[in-house]
Amino acid sequence: MASMPEMNKSGDYLAQFIRSQQTVLTIGLDTDVSKLPAVVRGDALSFNKEIIDATKDLCVAYKLNFAFYESQGKQGWDILEKTITHIPSSHLIIADAKRGDIGNTSEMYAKAVYDHLGCDAITVNPYMGSDSVKPFYREGKWVIILALTSNNGSVDFQQKELSDGRKVYEEVMASTSKWGSADDTMYVIGATHPDELKKIRENYPEHFFLVPGVGAQGGDLDAICKAGINHRGGLLINASRSILFASAGSDFAEKAREEAAKLSETMKSFLK
Amino acid sequence: MASMPEMNKSGDYLAQFIRSQQTVLTIGLDTDVSKLPAVVRGDALSFNKEIIDATKDLCVAYKLNFAFYESQGKQGWDILEKTITHIPSSHLIIADAKRGDIGNTSEMYAKAVYDHLGCDAITVNPYMGSDSVKPFYREGKWVIILALTSNNGSVDFQQKELSDGRKVYEEVMASTSKWGSADDTMYVIGATHPDELKKIRENYPEHFFLVPGVGAQGGDLDAICKAGINHRGGLLINASRSILFASAGSDFAEKAREEAAKLSETMKSFLK
Repeated sequence: MASMPEMNKSGDYLAQFIRSQQTVLTIGLDTDVSKLPAVVRGDALSFNKEIIDATKDLCVAYKLNFAFYESQGKQGWDILEKTITHIPSSHLIIADAKRGDIGNTSEMYAKAVYDHLGCDAITVNPYMGSDSVKPFYREGKWVIILALTSNNGSVDFQQKELSDGRKVYEEVMASTSKWGSADDTMYVIGATHPDELKKIRENYPEHFFLVPGVGAQGGDLDAICKAGINHRGGLLINASRSILFASAGSDFAEKAREEAAKLSETMKSFLK
Repeated sequence: MASMPEMNKSGDYLAQFIRSQQTVLTIGLDTDVSKLPAVVRGDALSFNKEIIDATKDLCVAYKLNFAFYESQGKQGWDILEKTITHIPSSHLIIADAKRGDIGNTSEMYAKAVYDHLGCDAITVNPYMGSDSVKPFYREGKWVIILALTSNNGSVDFQQKELSDGRKVYEEVMASTSKWGSADDTMYVIGATHPDELKKIRENYPEHFFLVPGVGAQGGDLDAICKAGINHRGGLLINASRSILFASAGSDFAEKAREEAAKLSETMKSFLK
């Protein structure tokens, strides 16, 4: 199912692609079938294709939120597969699956996402530790580890203070950054934490961060760009609902494009 | 896809079913297609059905490890659906999916697992906090939260000490136990931690714990039963590979039954 030819989209490629596209926009294909515009008659695959066609010159990555496909069973899985083959091979394809399990099981998830679906990156939950994360490392692929997420629940455990004074998410970043490099490891840092992002950027000057939470979740785009953009671009800022469902009418793709263009315009002003 | 009639299999039901089956055995359907006995000719669904038919009177639950199905794409998802419909409605059907995401996404995962697949329970990763876990609560369903897992990586974050002296997994249990009750919340405690299980049982006398790690991972069954079984049974002890692949020959189902019987015999001796 992998795009042909298979490309290695690690650090240098991504930095170069961001430079050429002049944006760090990532579009989240959280395709909720209950919200599709009437004009697509419930056809989530056509909807995704139109969104991709309308936005591909305005973003560097597409992020597929697996839950929205799994909720439709094997038909959803089919749509997931076919959507991925429609994404240009230039773009980073992110499996937003938040997986993580014991070694032999993480290997199976890696197989599903890389070999079967042909994705370039996967979001991984670090709670189970090193042997649950390491099976996702593979030449030319990105492991995107949950650090400080955008939701309110990030206070419950991620921001708890450890006995050495660091927070749990800081420990997660300190440990996992030794398992990979800035060319194969990214972190999820929610857009709702711009002050923390600034500090994190000081400690991790070269890493890419996947930043969800702009748009429907209320994160401040300017603050995020200012705090996080580095000489390689250094961010993938995700927007999902605000782009996908910008209009419920037959102009949904056009309105999605306008919303993507507006976000990318702001990002461009921070990319020197 | 739900089993008919839809049953509420919460605390009282489970305790009663354990009493009648005289076992706490849970069979993990980690159906690795590369390890199937030659006799089934690569047909994972037939294999699962034979395993279920051969073992259903010797266990109380089946646990489906989603990674092994997802790695086969939409065909795997089809096998997952059909396997679930073959499990007797008396048994607890556990989606071992280790999901967890922001609220609207966790809701989609809950929809996939409960509504589409008809499972009774799901394993959930707590790292993203309350609003990522709560969407999985639903009348008659079980939320099985990762606490102290069986793998070596459990030392990396779960066992880190917080500033108040508790470990991260203890904080996870203390917090999440307030989000539900002993009739809708279980914890994953790996069989490789019998001493911790003893202490956890003292603090949580009524909860059920899902205990993987007996068998291939080396957990001590007697020690686990002694530390964890309570007046309701209180454990679901999972074995996967040691049962499924007890024989690579045409007697695989018979050997799986023998292995399940052996484990259940030990469990029975601890169930008064």
